[in-house]
Amino acid sequence: MRINSFSFRVRYAETDQMGVVHHASYVPYLEMGRIEWLREVGVSYREMEENGIILPVISLQINYKKSALYDDLLTVQTSLKKIPLVKIEFDYKIFNQNKELLAEANTVLAFMDQKNNKPMKCPDYILEKLNP
Amino acid sequence: MRINSFSFRVRYAETDQMGVVHHASYVPYLEMGRIEWLREVGVSYREMEENGIILPVISLQINYKKSALYDDLLTVQTSLKKIPLVKIEFDYKIFNQNKELLAEANTVLAFMDQKNNKPMKCPDYILEKLNP
Amino acid sequence: MRINSFSFRVRYAETDQMGVVHHASYVPYLEMGRIEWLREVGVSYREMEENGIILPVISLQINYKKSALYDDLLTVQTSLKKIPLVKIEFDYKIFNQNKELLAEANTVLAFMDQKNNKPMKCPDYILEKLNP
Amino acid sequence: MRINSFSFRVRYAETDQMGVVHHASYVPYLEMGRIEWLREVGVSYREMEENGIILPVISLQINYKKSALYDDLLTVQTSLKKIPLVKIEFDYKIFNQNKELLAEANTVLAFMDQKNNKPMKCPDYILEKLNP
Repeated sequence: MRINSFSFRVRYAETDQMGVVHHASYVPYLEMGRIEWLREVGVSYREMEENGIILPVISLQINYKKSALYDDLLTVQTSLKKIPLVKIEFDYKIFNQNKELLAEANTVLAFMDQKNNKPMKCPDYILEKLNP
Repeated sequence: MRINSFSFRVRYAETDQMGVVHHASYVPYLEMGRIEWLREVGVSYREMEENGIILPVISLQINYKKSALYDDLLTVQTSLKKIPLVKIEFDYKIFNQNKELLAEANTVLAFMDQKNNKPMKCPDYILEKLNP
Repeated sequence: MRINSFSFRVRYAETDQMGVVHHASYVPYLEMGRIEWLREVGVSYREMEENGIILPVISLQINYKKSALYDDLLTVQTSLKKIPLVKIEFDYKIFNQNKELLAEANTVLAFMDQKNNKPMKCPDYILEKLNP
Repeated sequence: MRINSFSFRVRYAETDQMGVVHHASYVPYLEMGRIEWLREVGVSYREMEENGIILPVISLQINYKKSALYDDLLTVQTSLKKIPLVKIEFDYKIFNQNKELLAEANTVLAFMDQKNNKPMKCPDYILEKLNP
């Protein structure tokens, strides 16, 4: 399965008084990772939502191994765990500019029809992009 | 004009590596202050939105005087600046548990009709609650 | 093991454009839960840090079951999983005002000596408070 | 005075249930703007802090003109207002990918000596970079 690498700088607001990035700040990092993974295979999450499909997170797991610091240039490596059915699962690794592994994570999201708030299968146009 | 006082504890996630509350964290504090001011006069912002009226912020000003610290018990004092027409303006003071003034702030919000995204006048049912 | 219940209102800033609380917002909720759990047994995390002991999160797991909404009055129920050695592990349940279970979570934190950034055992004064 | 332009994408976590970027999310955008302004003239804020000089915000003003949306590619244009003495003042404009002006802002920050927590003058090595 392909891996998307997305890099960005740590913001000052993301640190806490321990002098490192607060553990909650990693959650939006993962979100950016999977959005960019989707973009790279040709899927715009923004358009998916405009078409009435939302992807709420149903589980989140993060293992923190080493602290990220202010102004670090981080990279999220995102990979799809398996072909999605009604759920889509991603694995993540976060590295700093010295290629040190800072965190490993996993999220599971559910395809939902926003109109009736019911689960649905992964749309065919996405499956086709995953199996070219 | 009446003043609402709302107290809450600083969260660890709201600090930064200077060892104090990050300046962006004050913005949700003000938001809580005006929501509680409205609740005290009998207006639920949640219900206002459910009825199609939204209140986006159009200007924000904060003067920071003294740092807030992790676990401080802060109080936001919120007051209405004047009777609202198409805009509603609030003044705020934020104090810590030692009654030290930490920040003064002002926000202006606009009444908007969510259906057509157009400005509108302050609804009568709110004006009545402000002038009992 | 005793359970601490801590209640607070959802802030507007914690919602996202799905119209529910963003999944990252739960992470500070858990942090408040464990801080209040510690406070209830007589341990101030603020004082612990002032004495050079920090508690970084080393793993985080959240299962999201039902959405939290703006202005909901949430309750975090926090419990200690087992007597801490070099790590301390908490379980959490988050409920809304209708006693609906919104999320279950678990975090593991490590006792660290801030001076040398080395792991350490749970201080005796905390263990004594856990085994009265 | 030179202008730094810094571009980045809106994160999903930065939106709120109005379907736009929450007004508090702009505050870290300004912070990124001034950090990049400083970097461009050759000043690393990270190194400045490592050398014991901090720059707390003492006032913040934002005028919101048009909403930013999820996945928008925003640009912060940051400019120095005047040669800094004990304070440093920046002006900002935030644009979306269609070059629409979304917000104008101003911040004043104070040079502080972290050791004694006292105000200080802008260090000479910074002044030299501003007046080449």
